[in-house]
Amino acid sequence: MDLVSYPAFSRVAITGGTHGNELSGVYIVREMQRQNVAQVGSVSISPILVNLPAIDACRRYIEKDLNRCFTDALLSTPLTDSSPYELRRAHELNSQLGPKGSPQAMDLVCDLHNTTSNMGLYTLETHKQYALCPIRVIYVDTSKSESYSVDSVAKHGFAIEVGPQPHGVLRADIYNMMKEAVDHTVDWLNKFNAGTIFEGGNLEVFVKEKSVDYPRNPETSELTAAIHPQLQDNDFKLLQRGDPIFMSFTGETVNYEGEELYPFFINECAYYEKKIAFHLAKKKMLTIPPISLKKD
Amino acid sequence: MDLVSYPAFSRVAITGGTHGNELSGVYIVREMQRQNVAQVGSVSISPILVNLPAIDACRRYIEKDLNRCFTDALLSTPLTDSSPYELRRAHELNSQLGPKGSPQAMDLVCDLHNTTSNMGLYTLETHKQYALCPIRVIYVDTSKSESYSVDSVAKHGFAIEVGPQPHGVLRADIYNMMKEAVDHTVDWLNKFNAGTIFEGGNLEVFVKEKSVDYPRNPETSELTAAIHPQLQDNDFKLLQRGDPIFMSFTGETVNYEGEELYPFFINECAYYEKKIAFHLAKKKMLTIPPISLKKD
Repeated sequence: MDLVSYPAFSRVAITGGTHGNELSGVYIVREMQRQNVAQVGSVSISPILVNLPAIDACRRYIEKDLNRCFTDALLSTPLTDSSPYELRRAHELNSQLGPKGSPQAMDLVCDLHNTTSNMGLYTLETHKQYALCPIRVIYVDTSKSESYSVDSVAKHGFAIEVGPQPHGVLRADIYNMMKEAVDHTVDWLNKFNAGTIFEGGNLEVFVKEKSVDYPRNPETSELTAAIHPQLQDNDFKLLQRGDPIFMSFTGETVNYEGEELYPFFINECAYYEKKIAFHLAKKKMLTIPPISLKKD
Repeated sequence: MDLVSYPAFSRVAITGGTHGNELSGVYIVREMQRQNVAQVGSVSISPILVNLPAIDACRRYIEKDLNRCFTDALLSTPLTDSSPYELRRAHELNSQLGPKGSPQAMDLVCDLHNTTSNMGLYTLETHKQYALCPIRVIYVDTSKSESYSVDSVAKHGFAIEVGPQPHGVLRADIYNMMKEAVDHTVDWLNKFNAGTIFEGGNLEVFVKEKSVDYPRNPETSELTAAIHPQLQDNDFKLLQRGDPIFMSFTGETVNYEGEELYPFFINECAYYEKKIAFHLAKKKMLTIPPISLKKD
């Protein structure tokens, strides 16, 4: 494939606490702020705590999930006295890190998250960026306009997400893994800015097909089953027809009936309210072109 | 030792959701309510959801930790318009399940909890009760008057606590373990009521000596270190002088300096705000007398 070139990544934001109870990112960004990290080689770095009231309350959000607020539609909705806190904060961040889609926007936002699912280290990629390390990549094929996450306000953006870690808990092993991914990212950016050509190749990615909800009581909407022990902690392992997926509270097993797909985000705490027990993905190959710095 | 006898356990409450985000107990009690469980053999069972607003919000509590509200002092504090919800609810429960220390009180309250610590299945015993299954026992040697947990309003009480499970998440393996412990308890009570004599013996218990807080910034009170990976998940394994206990965010290891003790509740989510990184216990042997039903 032909070489693709981009301008240098000069202005980068590392963001944590977009969800206030996902503590690895909160503590990594706090430590960068404490050490006054501002410039690493050729890259200007802004470490930002995204949702301070939620961090203080140790909750995902106060009124509305902030990481669903960055679509063009929501960013162009006028604020009123009754706008939820997170929508106000999204507009603020859009001014600070964007405006989304404009030439003034940050070159890159790297947003730090945790999950209670056993997903290891992975990145959530939107609007056609490329993985920086050999890790699982969830590729979200959506337009920039419809992208709802904070990293979508920058020219390039992705999330680093590590699990399993309970929300509200900080584990050193997970912290170290995320810190290494952040350091690796900054290192990659410096190499890119210095003119290194990164060879392209094939990249295995997971592309979400659909979501599956828990079995629920149709009247009260309360759960009538939990994730089956044979599915629990088996993110990214192929789910086949007949595999157990739920265990009801009266002891019955519910088996999977659909096409062969890869489950992920199995039993994520924050997704109970979103009516998602797990997502299902297809594995695909993306062909990545070689990339290099655009010469002036 | 001499045989000790008690009257039959006729009226028993199984309580869940005392902390609203500890989901195993919430779903076990809900399922018992759905099945209209009211009598099992000789035992009348009341399945009770303890803190409904906190369960709905999926939080430990709304205004005040309910499971710290059942001391004699707090139960005799008059309620006012500004009393926190949980104090009102504690008074209500004391009327329903107690009054604490009175002959009308329930014979037994068995309260269901989860922890994010890797503690397996264990019971928290207060005011001199006996373990019902071969599991870890944390023995809290305090007076009934000062006992602050919901199970202290009954004549006999204990907590069943299972971990690790993230708060706000329901894992089938943990649910099954707790369900088995509850069924075992009810089975034991029926055997006792039928006149079975339970032989005494020695029981290994853990008795809390003290608590250790995280290293913190003295000005902001923010954490400067996390539980060390070598201590994480090693609840109930003897901690010796020189063992690593914390990893600072700048990479330094903090080693343990005190006497040999057993750590437990390592990295429990709810204890960050209580300034507890882990508890330390001594292992002791209790000699349990044989017990049997008191004949009229």
